[in-house]
Amino acid sequence: MPENLTHFEFDITRSEREKLNGHKSITIWITGLSGAGKSTIANRLESKLFKAGIKTMLLDGDNIRSGLNSDLGFSTTDREENIRRIGETAKLLMDSGSVVIASFISPLIENRTTIKDIVGEENFVEIYVNTPLDSCIKRDNKGLYAKAILGDIDDFTGISAPYQPPSNSDFEISFESSDYEEKLKAIISKIKTSISYK
Amino acid sequence: MPENLTHFEFDITRSEREKLNGHKSITIWITGLSGAGKSTIANRLESKLFKAGIKTMLLDGDNIRSGLNSDLGFSTTDREENIRRIGETAKLLMDSGSVVIASFISPLIENRTTIKDIVGEENFVEIYVNTPLDSCIKRDNKGLYAKAILGDIDDFTGISAPYQPPSNSDFEISFESSDYEEKLKAIISKIKTSISYK
Repeated sequence: MPENLTHFEFDITRSEREKLNGHKSITIWITGLSGAGKSTIANRLESKLFKAGIKTMLLDGDNIRSGLNSDLGFSTTDREENIRRIGETAKLLMDSGSVVIASFISPLIENRTTIKDIVGEENFVEIYVNTPLDSCIKRDNKGLYAKAILGDIDDFTGISAPYQPPSNSDFEISFESSDYEEKLKAIISKIKTSISYK
Repeated sequence: MPENLTHFEFDITRSEREKLNGHKSITIWITGLSGAGKSTIANRLESKLFKAGIKTMLLDGDNIRSGLNSDLGFSTTDREENIRRIGETAKLLMDSGSVVIASFISPLIENRTTIKDIVGEENFVEIYVNTPLDSCIKRDNKGLYAKAILGDIDDFTGISAPYQPPSNSDFEISFESSDYEEKLKAIISKIKTSISYK
């Protein structure tokens, strides 16, 4: 802490907020290729938790890159800073009592390690959306793979930049496997149980 | 928004979260000199709101400078970036449904304007803690004024850097005026009423 900052003991702590909410606050980190179905899973997960009365907040490229990290580009340094700030924001949101659902490609092992270190391992739940690259390219619902293959987008994960799959995720799900629905429901139910105080 | 980001319509919006919480989310910005009593007021305000079931989150130099903004120093550029990020974080916290209580010296009019622009004027409530400089120096509960007067801290607000008082705060309160308690209670009660949906 810089020298001219001092610490004030506030009465309301994260633990007080968690008690009021009736659930723990955690960070659910959703990683996977572009087009793997991360947003769809994030949305389903958040809706279900929210409808169960859980305080949720969703972070993704849209609300982060357009605001807090609008000053950052896509250089290696800026990508690292992007991840660091997302981690710190998730931490503040957890302090506020929220269950944070964060949906980011986060292609490198070190990206996910950074987040885990900042939010604390005990608060970190990882979902790896392991939809195969071929299927992501076939779906290409944002038209980004077409551009990346043509070379119109540099450093595109899966095409011209690596994706390092997590080796030890809490959950793994493929958007196009036959048991997708069943698996998603199981994930949501397990997370719900794990954070509940009831 | 950068070209390779797209927008996904999530089901749970700020307005849904506000409805679930039973109150609007706003940013209460507490400005004033070092030692003016901002933290004490922030703490009282938060405790009262929290005990009324309101979702609150407190931001101050302690939790911001030690985490999200730990990469920033105290140059003019870094101070501006510090304020911008606080504004963007407050916005995300409001999106999550929280009443944000932010306690920062924020000495310049343009600092408070930046915040107001980011969070939106309709969400911005300003409390000016106008404890006179003499009293802040006399209290000097952090020992910072003594150092600043000796020149051991550069650009210290009130001593070697300006404080531009707000001309049009929503609330104004002095830590040492005789009606302090009464005024603080009135401020808290007015804020509570203004955000309630009930």
